[in-house]
Amino acid sequence: MVLGDPAGIGPELVARLLSDPAERARAAVLLIADPAELEEGFRIAGKRFEVKRIDRIPDFRSDVDVPQLLEYRGSATPPYTRGESTANGGRYSLDTLQVAIDATTGGATDAICFAPLNKASLHLGGMGHGDELHWFAERLGFSGPVCEINALDKLWTSRVTSHVALKDVSALITGDRIQEAIEIIYRALRTAGVAEPRVAICGLNPHLGDGGAFGREEIDVIGPAAETARAKGFPVLGPFPADTVFIKARDGDYDAVVTMYHDQGQIAMKLMGFSSGVTLQGGLPIPITTPAHGTAFDIYGQGRAHPGAMQQAYLMACRMAAHRRR
Amino acid sequence: MVLGDPAGIGPELVARLLSDPAERARAAVLLIADPAELEEGFRIAGKRFEVKRIDRIPDFRSDVDVPQLLEYRGSATPPYTRGESTANGGRYSLDTLQVAIDATTGGATDAICFAPLNKASLHLGGMGHGDELHWFAERLGFSGPVCEINALDKLWTSRVTSHVALKDVSALITGDRIQEAIEIIYRALRTAGVAEPRVAICGLNPHLGDGGAFGREEIDVIGPAAETARAKGFPVLGPFPADTVFIKARDGDYDAVVTMYHDQGQIAMKLMGFSSGVTLQGGLPIPITTPAHGTAFDIYGQGRAHPGAMQQAYLMACRMAAHRRR
Repeated sequence: MVLGDPAGIGPELVARLLSDPAERARAAVLLIADPAELEEGFRIAGKRFEVKRIDRIPDFRSDVDVPQLLEYRGSATPPYTRGESTANGGRYSLDTLQVAIDATTGGATDAICFAPLNKASLHLGGMGHGDELHWFAERLGFSGPVCEINALDKLWTSRVTSHVALKDVSALITGDRIQEAIEIIYRALRTAGVAEPRVAICGLNPHLGDGGAFGREEIDVIGPAAETARAKGFPVLGPFPADTVFIKARDGDYDAVVTMYHDQGQIAMKLMGFSSGVTLQGGLPIPITTPAHGTAFDIYGQGRAHPGAMQQAYLMACRMAAHRRR
Repeated sequence: MVLGDPAGIGPELVARLLSDPAERARAAVLLIADPAELEEGFRIAGKRFEVKRIDRIPDFRSDVDVPQLLEYRGSATPPYTRGESTANGGRYSLDTLQVAIDATTGGATDAICFAPLNKASLHLGGMGHGDELHWFAERLGFSGPVCEINALDKLWTSRVTSHVALKDVSALITGDRIQEAIEIIYRALRTAGVAEPRVAICGLNPHLGDGGAFGREEIDVIGPAAETARAKGFPVLGPFPADTVFIKARDGDYDAVVTMYHDQGQIAMKLMGFSSGVTLQGGLPIPITTPAHGTAFDIYGQGRAHPGAMQQAYLMACRMAAHRRR
């Protein structure tokens, strides 16, 4: 586990989360952090927990019942600026994440959970990719398809397109991309312990285009892609109209919804629970989770950051780690 | 008030609604219906109310404390088929609506509320327009801009585009159309008694296009249209990202959200309350309301149709009628 951007609420969230004995009991936790930052989190949260310091990753042991702290700040230099994006904060985030990647690919740990990052800091700190998902893929030497997965309680969503102009969405929706989004979320759900994931697929147009009257993507691309997935053994359902699928999903009819564009899923997911959403870096060979919310610079240091999403991200990482161990 | 398609739950809904004395007390109600259909509604609902029969519209009086029934079935012929779309049901719907239009344009009544129609029946029954909104406009001789408004409790939405392919949305979003959607919903809210409507405008792209990185409609069209509206005296707010605006709207920060495409609003509105939504035929010179749900052929005659949305549609018509009287 890493603290995320030191300018944000990450250290406070980790302090609050792991000060709960029940949370600590879920897993052996390797914390990769500048100890002064963890101390700052303790101070802001008004809560603390005992740690066992270790000097190097091979000293991490799974049978130690307190979080094990590997002191590390990489190329960052304290003191850290608070409440705003800085290169120093970005470097701290990236360098501690790199150690977490090394620990997990090396087999010492089974999953990564990180507190909120700040995209502007990451870019200032040297991240050349548009988002951390693609940075992770590069660092893992992974060239397969990846896809951000958003999770809220038991409902997960993946998307075929993400940060693209709405007018470009249709051209980017291909059978292959839909297939990838289906397989990534299906496999992730299995890794999270869902034995038979029920995956629903959204259409693109209002009322699924009403038989081709306004839009043919459901007929020409999405429907056939769903058929292909079923033929390959993925039990997907749909396509369904986007304005009703989330009502059924919320009622528990599906474990996941594959959406065609960013807001199709995000309008629904944010309405259903802005504060407890989790982002999973989907498609990667190791489980990596984080809260869906950001660094909340505006409430830095106030001791009122809500740890709900951080707790959910940690829970998901624990569940996926346990599944990998089997 | 008219019963909608006789094959659906309309007669049952009207029977249940107006059997409540508190609902009857809200307004003087002119019912334009085949009495046998009203009787069928009574039978299914297991509830009834007294009516005063009148022979012609000029006999309708505003100081009568029971619903006044004008016997009418137009060119339709009983018996009616139940639970499916028919030309006969469509004719009954259109003919009774026409009398309601005549009664309202003639000044006998102030607003129209109708129970659910069935689009396929309407087309079979002779409606040449894509939807009833444009049929109403033609019958009213109204050639100005119109726009379906969806309302849920105190939150209303209008949209700049509706039943069009998602890939065509961007090209259809113009300053003039945004302006129309703003003005229609603003004026409708005023007519419904909201003195200072707070109208929020959605962007089109994820995260508003992130400063032009993925989509420029916010910069080139939507932002300037919002500015123009403000300059004309409409106190509109935004544009805002679509995936967070509805959280604030639900919390009461806005009275209305102007959306750019069908699902942008419908995903949110349906999640917030599928059963109690109301559709207002926006832009027309007279208030016309209906439940947002359909004829529910599958539960015809079972006596379990929920009158929540019908009640809300009736309430909105009463409120707008009272405002017109002032």
